[in-house]
Amino acid sequence: MLSQNQIKHITALKVKKFREEQRQFIAEGHKLVLDLLGSEFNIAGIYASAEWIIENLPEIRKKNIPVFETLPREMERISSLSTPSPVLAVINLPLSNHQIDTSPHSLTGKLTLALDDIRDPGNLGTIIRIADWFGISTVLCSESCVDTYNPKVVQATMGSIVRVNVIRCNLIDVLTRISATGNEPCSADHLPVYGTFLEGESLFLQPLSNYGIIVIGNESRGISAELIPFITQKLYIPSFGTPGAGKAESLNASIATAIICAEFRRKSEKNS
Amino acid sequence: MLSQNQIKHITALKVKKFREEQRQFIAEGHKLVLDLLGSEFNIAGIYASAEWIIENLPEIRKKNIPVFETLPREMERISSLSTPSPVLAVINLPLSNHQIDTSPHSLTGKLTLALDDIRDPGNLGTIIRIADWFGISTVLCSESCVDTYNPKVVQATMGSIVRVNVIRCNLIDVLTRISATGNEPCSADHLPVYGTFLEGESLFLQPLSNYGIIVIGNESRGISAELIPFITQKLYIPSFGTPGAGKAESLNASIATAIICAEFRRKSEKNS
Repeated sequence: MLSQNQIKHITALKVKKFREEQRQFIAEGHKLVLDLLGSEFNIAGIYASAEWIIENLPEIRKKNIPVFETLPREMERISSLSTPSPVLAVINLPLSNHQIDTSPHSLTGKLTLALDDIRDPGNLGTIIRIADWFGISTVLCSESCVDTYNPKVVQATMGSIVRVNVIRCNLIDVLTRISATGNEPCSADHLPVYGTFLEGESLFLQPLSNYGIIVIGNESRGISAELIPFITQKLYIPSFGTPGAGKAESLNASIATAIICAEFRRKSEKNS
Repeated sequence: MLSQNQIKHITALKVKKFREEQRQFIAEGHKLVLDLLGSEFNIAGIYASAEWIIENLPEIRKKNIPVFETLPREMERISSLSTPSPVLAVINLPLSNHQIDTSPHSLTGKLTLALDDIRDPGNLGTIIRIADWFGISTVLCSESCVDTYNPKVVQATMGSIVRVNVIRCNLIDVLTRISATGNEPCSADHLPVYGTFLEGESLFLQPLSNYGIIVIGNESRGISAELIPFITQKLYIPSFGTPGAGKAESLNASIATAIICAEFRRKSEKNS
């Protein structure tokens, strides 16, 4: 049985203000909680059915995490899911900012996503999952992006949130520093900056590097005007509508990200 | 001002049972309603703000559609959106089944998606939008897929629902007929049947046809056991995790669909 205070505390974590105040967030579901147990994230408490606790006790004990047996009707109150799972974890956000290294040097030689004002929690979570699938270890989020620890974002990552470094930063600052560090094609720390535009070149026909920054624009407005000057290569995802017939005007932001990442990785595999 | 009966009628259309009884569905938002106005769909009524009606009167008059001025507080009651738009349309479902042609002949020579038990409305809508972008005119849905006219599906298509033929059918029957019609690689109506599996061949390295059926499996269980025997080419979307590090176990169904469709179209463009 949970106390009213526990229920109140967990329920409050659905709201960004309280997550920031408490520096905690919630994650639900067997796979996600197991992924968190195996990660460096610090788990403040696990709330689960008696069956789940019995089955997973060795894992929990190893880390000395407080566990609270939670009845189905209590789980319904604390859960953010329409169909609650048998387990919910409260996670402490990393205290220090040691992970926040967005210097051009730290991004050299690898592929990084930069999300410009992604507002939909499902999109952000799905993009983190895509990054994980395609071995992209860092995702930069503009300050206007939806909160990384929004329960819908956490759930949509399907556990990838433990493996991908999601960094909230001022994208203009980061891209200014990249362009200032002699970002010339011949330089050793050259970092091309890619973005998709209606007037871009076909993603499929362009040579693509296996390092650089891929900027993903907002769901309805695309890439912000302030970021456009930093883009060194404009891409376009070709559509294949029947001539004469109408066709979709755009793709969802996470769908576009997936197609772009797949093509970068396909080309790098071919060249390696 | 809307009558209580109107409000009751529209609100009921959020529920599948009533959509089937009334053979109507709802669509919201300026772009979606304009796409519908320009399509062959039969619009039973438009509910909109005075401003929207004035701006779009010529379009509405052309089709002689009943229009009802709707106050913001009324729109909040009838809308399925968290932020209601200025316009909602009630659409009549096509009465006849004339579009339902799933004979192997009707699928010959083109690429078709077959969705096996896609349950998430966002996924179904997004997949219809992807099909539209990549010029795939027909999407077959198993009977267990979420209802095509669920408001969340309709919204997620972003208008593509007017351009893509979404057909609900028994996929086993359709695939049985395809495999029975001499589905040999040398035959004129050869239709390869593709599906993704963990043990499949790399999507990027396999030759892909520019016609055939691409089967997309359920969000958590993948392709049903009964459909597996019909798959003639097993594919796999390569992941690129750092060796030693964990990685995402899977991709979201609509994300996988996007990557697969993009690669089919990239290869067909290259070969044409």
